[in-house]
Amino acid sequence: MTAYTATVTVRLKRGVLDPEAETTKRALDRLGFELQGLRATDRYEIDLDAADADAAEERASEMADRLLANPTIHDYEVEVEEAEE
Amino acid sequence: MTAYTATVTVRLKRGVLDPEAETTKRALDRLGFELQGLRATDRYEIDLDAADADAAEERASEMADRLLANPTIHDYEVEVEEAEE
Repeated sequence: MTAYTATVTVRLKRGVLDPEAETTKRALDRLGFELQGLRATDRYEIDLDAADADAAEERASEMADRLLANPTIHDYEVEVEEAEE
Repeated sequence: MTAYTATVTVRLKRGVLDPEAETTKRALDRLGFELQGLRATDRYEIDLDAADADAAEERASEMADRLLANPTIHDYEVEVEEAEE
């Protein structure tokens, strides 16, 4: 088995309202920053052992499907790297 | 001016307790997943116009210093890309 770090980035689907991002953007506007848009995403870095990178990615995708992402409103991406020693 | 997307990743400093990550990890354990560790990070994708990439990075760092990250408990990284047309 090899130690991997799978990074799952969960974001709201296009068109789904994001009150947290809207509030953050307005606060930055009030501080005098000029920005065109802001999107907030959640990112989970998961340390796990797996036979290979594909198995690690599959397991992380299962975790996203079952807990980390709500399929109705979220999309997610998985990136896998060998864990740093 | 050029349109950039600056991505600010905010994470808790090493050693700072992360109740959200702990709770998420325990939930995954209960679902039968085997994982060694889990870290939760917040990630902001900011669309802004700037003279160049360095200026975009500097502005995004200022936003992190003033609002997105709490310097006492957070570290942050900034990545800048030209915005997709």
